[in-house]
Amino acid sequence: MTEVSAPTSDASHAPVTVIGLGLMGHTLAGAFLTNGHPTTVWNRSPAKAEELVARGATLAASARDAVAASPLVIICVTDYQAARELLDPLADVLAGRVLVNLTSGTSEQARQTADWAAARATTYLDGVILAAPTDISTPAAALLYSGPQAAFDTHEPTLRSLGSGTTYLGADHGLSALYDMATLTVMWSVLNGFLHGAALLGTAGVDAATVTPFVSHGIATVTGWLSGMADQIDNGTYAAADATIDIHLASMTHLIEESRSLGVNAELPELAKTLADRAVAEGHGGDGYAAMIEQFRKPRS
Amino acid sequence: MTEVSAPTSDASHAPVTVIGLGLMGHTLAGAFLTNGHPTTVWNRSPAKAEELVARGATLAASARDAVAASPLVIICVTDYQAARELLDPLADVLAGRVLVNLTSGTSEQARQTADWAAARATTYLDGVILAAPTDISTPAAALLYSGPQAAFDTHEPTLRSLGSGTTYLGADHGLSALYDMATLTVMWSVLNGFLHGAALLGTAGVDAATVTPFVSHGIATVTGWLSGMADQIDNGTYAAADATIDIHLASMTHLIEESRSLGVNAELPELAKTLADRAVAEGHGGDGYAAMIEQFRKPRS
Repeated sequence: MTEVSAPTSDASHAPVTVIGLGLMGHTLAGAFLTNGHPTTVWNRSPAKAEELVARGATLAASARDAVAASPLVIICVTDYQAARELLDPLADVLAGRVLVNLTSGTSEQARQTADWAAARATTYLDGVILAAPTDISTPAAALLYSGPQAAFDTHEPTLRSLGSGTTYLGADHGLSALYDMATLTVMWSVLNGFLHGAALLGTAGVDAATVTPFVSHGIATVTGWLSGMADQIDNGTYAAADATIDIHLASMTHLIEESRSLGVNAELPELAKTLADRAVAEGHGGDGYAAMIEQFRKPRS
Repeated sequence: MTEVSAPTSDASHAPVTVIGLGLMGHTLAGAFLTNGHPTTVWNRSPAKAEELVARGATLAASARDAVAASPLVIICVTDYQAARELLDPLADVLAGRVLVNLTSGTSEQARQTADWAAARATTYLDGVILAAPTDISTPAAALLYSGPQAAFDTHEPTLRSLGSGTTYLGADHGLSALYDMATLTVMWSVLNGFLHGAALLGTAGVDAATVTPFVSHGIATVTGWLSGMADQIDNGTYAAADATIDIHLASMTHLIEESRSLGVNAELPELAKTLADRAVAEGHGGDGYAAMIEQFRKPRS
């Protein structure tokens, strides 16, 4: 009987370093270990590494040693400032490596960090994780990267250990932060819309669990409209397929009245109406809702 | 050879009247005709009935004749006031019939109309259509009714001609309007969140069509959280499963900074932060986002 060894690839054994072992960093390091990557970890408080070390991770004695251990260095700390304070003294060991920062921040911080890295001969990828730690390594996790494509391509097999939704966005280091921001604004919008709706129905004694399937159906319906709206936005033409902004405005007024008369917070529809009023003042009353993009493209007037 | 006639039921031949032949009313009457219901129609401008008459509808000579033609009368006009002005002189023929108003309005208008109908010995169902006219008779159309259950049950087979998503909500006549309002607030929330996100990414030259699948994925993810949040809302306990309101607040601040520094409208995250600030001031900083329901339950403070 011949024993056939499992096929191996260099990629599946590429070493990686994870700096910062909070809930997310810890989960990332664990995913690399699960996928067979020699994983070096470092955390200001080393106790957080214990479980990972028991699973085969190497605990570096210092952040410097951690960076020196791998060609790919992932940092996942509180914010960009914490990352920079930690990495600033390590320019000599960072040189020639690929640094991936999975800290959330603004696109300006990402672009500034890219400049900072370039000045230290370090290749920089900015990344964001659109997922809870429990989603890491599942198809639910979206992991978005921006920066030099060659660096992404080289390390994609390793990065893909964190989830099949690993995606390269483009060379502009600010892109990952912008996608993160877009996801956040949509998240709070959905949550606040749901809460406002639940509050309205709560006045009639309907519980939130009863409201949820209706709201979810409505959300799915509206989500189906977005790609048509996107085409209008990209073309700069806003023909009303159905309701015009004028018609939306009339309904917004009803919703404000309803909220106020029930003693429910009316600020969400008030803001929607403020924006729609501006669109009408600029001559978009007969256009479809996609024309509202012009209000979002500029500061309040 | 024996000819077997198709089974018929009284329900499938129940007569119905549709008053108001705007785009939606016209579509409703057409759906009743398609489903074999003797359909009487009336519109202030009779020309709008021509196509329906060609398909077998009966054009009544007056609103009074239209009401008198069927035990079930659907009215679909601009607003509650228009409906009341039209029906006020017809109390004698309305008595004993079931009136269904599919005009959008507030829960107070629906409840007042129920009182008005009761004083005229007319059974009233308030309804809302959560669908575009093109969705009528498809599974995409949600048609929600509130009022006396017996009247709904009697006429459900006829009403179901308008869509399989025909649903009875409860005896409180205000419920259909409140569900309508909940759906509207979620609709504008999703649309505005999408537009804000598209505006943010537009600053980096990313077109809206490219953003849409990411945003849609994010919306679906957040929709999946709602039933867990609903349970917390109904229980009045807001344990943070993942991010606390304090953590959300920090991200909201980033999003406001990002929007302002890119010259994009920041009012959506500013409102989100205003509401979250109030929740923190009331001691909910360490709670999950479901605790924000308390801010939506009351007018601005």
